[in-house]
Amino acid sequence: MTEDLLAFIDQTVDDAIQDLGRLIALPSVAAKGEHMEETAQLVAEMLRGVGSETKIHETSGCPVVTGEIDVGAERTLLCYDHYDVQPAEPFDLWESPPFEMSVRGDRIYGRGVADNKGDFVTRLWAVKAFQETGTEIPVNLKFVVEGEEEISSPHLYEFVEDNREWLKADGGIWEFGGSGIDGKQEAWLGLKGILYVQLEVEALSHDAHSSLACVLPSAASRLVWALSSLKGADEHIMIDDFYDGIKPLTHAELEALSIIEMREEDVKKHYGITSFILGLEGDELKERYYNGPTCNICGIDTGYQGEGSKTVLPAKATAKIDFRLVEGMDPDTVLKGLRIHLDQHGFSDVKIAWHEGYPAAKTPVGHPFVELVSKANEEVFGHRLTLQPTSPGSGPLYLFDALVPMVSIGCGDFESRAHSPNETILIDNFQKTIKRMVVLIEMMKDY
Amino acid sequence: MTEDLLAFIDQTVDDAIQDLGRLIALPSVAAKGEHMEETAQLVAEMLRGVGSETKIHETSGCPVVTGEIDVGAERTLLCYDHYDVQPAEPFDLWESPPFEMSVRGDRIYGRGVADNKGDFVTRLWAVKAFQETGTEIPVNLKFVVEGEEEISSPHLYEFVEDNREWLKADGGIWEFGGSGIDGKQEAWLGLKGILYVQLEVEALSHDAHSSLACVLPSAASRLVWALSSLKGADEHIMIDDFYDGIKPLTHAELEALSIIEMREEDVKKHYGITSFILGLEGDELKERYYNGPTCNICGIDTGYQGEGSKTVLPAKATAKIDFRLVEGMDPDTVLKGLRIHLDQHGFSDVKIAWHEGYPAAKTPVGHPFVELVSKANEEVFGHRLTLQPTSPGSGPLYLFDALVPMVSIGCGDFESRAHSPNETILIDNFQKTIKRMVVLIEMMKDY
Repeated sequence: MTEDLLAFIDQTVDDAIQDLGRLIALPSVAAKGEHMEETAQLVAEMLRGVGSETKIHETSGCPVVTGEIDVGAERTLLCYDHYDVQPAEPFDLWESPPFEMSVRGDRIYGRGVADNKGDFVTRLWAVKAFQETGTEIPVNLKFVVEGEEEISSPHLYEFVEDNREWLKADGGIWEFGGSGIDGKQEAWLGLKGILYVQLEVEALSHDAHSSLACVLPSAASRLVWALSSLKGADEHIMIDDFYDGIKPLTHAELEALSIIEMREEDVKKHYGITSFILGLEGDELKERYYNGPTCNICGIDTGYQGEGSKTVLPAKATAKIDFRLVEGMDPDTVLKGLRIHLDQHGFSDVKIAWHEGYPAAKTPVGHPFVELVSKANEEVFGHRLTLQPTSPGSGPLYLFDALVPMVSIGCGDFESRAHSPNETILIDNFQKTIKRMVVLIEMMKDY
Repeated sequence: MTEDLLAFIDQTVDDAIQDLGRLIALPSVAAKGEHMEETAQLVAEMLRGVGSETKIHETSGCPVVTGEIDVGAERTLLCYDHYDVQPAEPFDLWESPPFEMSVRGDRIYGRGVADNKGDFVTRLWAVKAFQETGTEIPVNLKFVVEGEEEISSPHLYEFVEDNREWLKADGGIWEFGGSGIDGKQEAWLGLKGILYVQLEVEALSHDAHSSLACVLPSAASRLVWALSSLKGADEHIMIDDFYDGIKPLTHAELEALSIIEMREEDVKKHYGITSFILGLEGDELKERYYNGPTCNICGIDTGYQGEGSKTVLPAKATAKIDFRLVEGMDPDTVLKGLRIHLDQHGFSDVKIAWHEGYPAAKTPVGHPFVELVSKANEEVFGHRLTLQPTSPGSGPLYLFDALVPMVSIGCGDFESRAHSPNETILIDNFQKTIKRMVVLIEMMKDY
C-alpha cells in the first residue's frame, strides 16, 4: 500500500512544487503585516483541498489557521507550520525575485521555500497521497498554521489558551528541518527562546550639519556606546545576572551531542571565515551552539547610507537586537535587566521602543515519539535522524510543551539560506520529505 | 547711481527667485555624481547671461566653471561658489519635493537654496543690476564655481594649480553665510579642514540566520566596537597624537570671539536639547565650536532596517565618519593615525574603503578686505558683520590661501537647515544679499 503512495508522490512532485509556488507568490512578511489575511485564506483553501475541516481563528494579530482530519483513530499527529516569512531585503542580492518561485537545476528558490512554506506543502501532499490513491488515513491529523512566527509569535498564546484540549496529540511535527552539512537528515528537539528589542535614541529634534558635532550630541554615538556596553569583544553579555539560572545540558543531551559532527572546517568555508568567535572549537563550540545565549545586532539605522559622503549629524539612531535565550532564562527578566543596564550605564536616553519574545523549550532526547520519527526517516532517507537536542534558532515551542511532544524536521538543507537572499531547497529533499511524512503517518498507527 | 541698482533689485527679485528655481530643479548631488555636467552647463549659461567670459575646466572629477568680466579696473573681486548639493535623503521628511523650488510665506525651500545655489544667484543678479541699469561695473569680476564642494572638493586643486595667476584677486567672497541666531549678518573668515572616511567590515561571505550569532562573528559588533574605540562618552578622540600640533586661537581671534553671543539657550531650543556635549557652556563651548576637531558618525548601515523584526546576522557593516580638523592638523596624518589606531586595537578587519579631505584655513580677522565687506553689509543691513574667525564647517579655502583674502557671506539664516530636509532661505535675506553685493562692488573701486 505504501508503495502506491510513494509512486503517487514521484508522479506528482511537479504539481506539489506548483502548489508551493502559489504560497511563495504571496509576500506574507509578518514584520510588514502585508498580505497576511490573503495568505491565511490560501492556507485554509489548501487545507480544505486535502479534506480537512478548517477554521480561521482570529487573534489580536494575524489569524491562526487550523485543519483537522478526524478519522476516529486512537492516535493523533499534529503539525505546526507558519504562513509568514522573513523580509526579503536586501532585494538586490536575490538572483530571482523573492516572491516568484524559481526552479533552477535541482533547486527551488524563493522567500519561504525553506522557512517554512515548503514544509507545509510537503505535509499537505502527504495527506493528498493517501486520498488520491484511495488509501485510508490511519491516524487523526491536526494542522496549526500561524502567521507571526517570524516576529516571535506574539499572539499565538491566545489561540493556544483557547484550544488547549484540541491541541493535545500523541506526536507533533514542528515547522522546519532538513539535512545538515553532512547531508544527513536532522531532527531538532528544542528551540531557544528569544527576546527581540528595538533600541532608539533621539538626540536632536532634527538632523544637523555635521560641523556642529563639535557641540551637539550625537544619537549615533550614544547608540554605539550603549551597544558596546551590552557586549564587548570578549562576547560576554554585560547585563547583570544575564547568565543566572541557565540550565546545563543533561547527560542524555550531551550523549546525543557527542555523536554530532560539527564539520567545523566546512561551516567556516561556507561562511568564508577563518575561525569561530573567540576561536572556539570542539566541545566548547558545541556547548556555545546548543546552550549559549546571544546578544546579536540584527540591524543599525542612522544617518546617510547612500553612495559617497554626506556630512550630517543624524538626529536619530535605531538598532534591532535579538537575544537568543536557553533553558532557564526568561525574556521578561532579560528585558528588565536590559533596561536597568542601560539606565545604570548612563543610557536612559536609549529607549526600548518595542520588544517581543518567549522562553526556550525542548522535547526530551529519549522520548519514544522521537524514535518513531527517526525510524520513518530511515525508511525514506536510509539513515537514522541526527538528533539535535535544540536548534540555535527560536520558535514558540514552549506553548505546546505540556500538550504534545514535538520533533522538528523539514525539507531544507545546509545551503537553504533561511532568512537570507536566495532562500532555497533541493527538489529531492522536498520529494523525500513528503514520503517521510507518508511513512510516519503509516507507522503512527502502531505507536 | 546705487539707488537705481537697488530699485532694480526690488523690482526683479521674483525673476531672481525663478532663476534660482532653474538651478534647484537639477539634483546635482555630488555624492551620487548625477546631473553634474548638465548643471555645469546651466551655470555657464547663467554666467554668460550676465556678460562674463565663461570657461568649463575639465578635472578628473566634475568640471569647474569660471566666469570673468574684465573691465580693466585696478581692483579684482572673486567669488567662489559650488553647483553641487548634499543628498536630499531622508526624502520623507521634506514638506515639498527637494528638487522643486517652493516659495511658502516669506521663505524659499529646496535642496541647495542656502548651500549654495542661492548665494550664487545673488552674485549673478548683483552683476545683472549693473548691466540692466546701464551702470558701469567698477571692478574686475571673477567667478569660480566648482561641482564637488559637498564631497570635499577632491579635484579642485587641479584647477587651482593650473590657474594660480588667474585666481589672484584683491578680495574674494566665499560661498556661504547669512544671519545668525541673533538675526545679525555674519562673516565666516575661516573653514575647518575635514577628513571623511567610509569604514567597512565584512565578517561573513553572506548574511546568516541570527541564531548562528552564538558561534559566527558579527560585522555589526565589530564595527560598533571599532567606533567605540575611536571616541568614548568623554568625547575624547583616542587616535594617538590626534590633537598634536593644534594651533591655539590668536589674540585677535579671541577678541573677535569675546563679542560673539552664542545664544546658548536659543540654540538648545532649536535642536531640542537640554545641554551641549559634556555640559559645555560659555568660553569652553566657544573654544570647542571654533577650535575643536570632531569625530562624527554621519551614518551606519548594517542589517535589517525595515519595519518590525528580522532575525539576521548581517555579513557586512559600514559607517561614514567625518573628522573636522582645525588649524595645525593634517588630514593625511589623521588618516594614517586612524589606520594605526584600528590595527593596534585589533580592528585590522575594519577597512577604510575610501577617504577624502583637506586642511583648515583662515583669513586674518584684521584684514582690510574684511573691514570693507563689513562696511558694505552695514549699508544694506544696518549693522556691522559679526566676524566669525572660522566656521565649524569645512571648505577648500586652503587652496586659495595665498591668492586671495576670502570672506564668506551669504543669503542663509539660522533656520536654513543646510544639509538637512526642508533647506530654506528668507526672501528678504536673498534680496538684501544681492544689494550687499552691489554695494560691495561699488565700494571695492576705492579699496
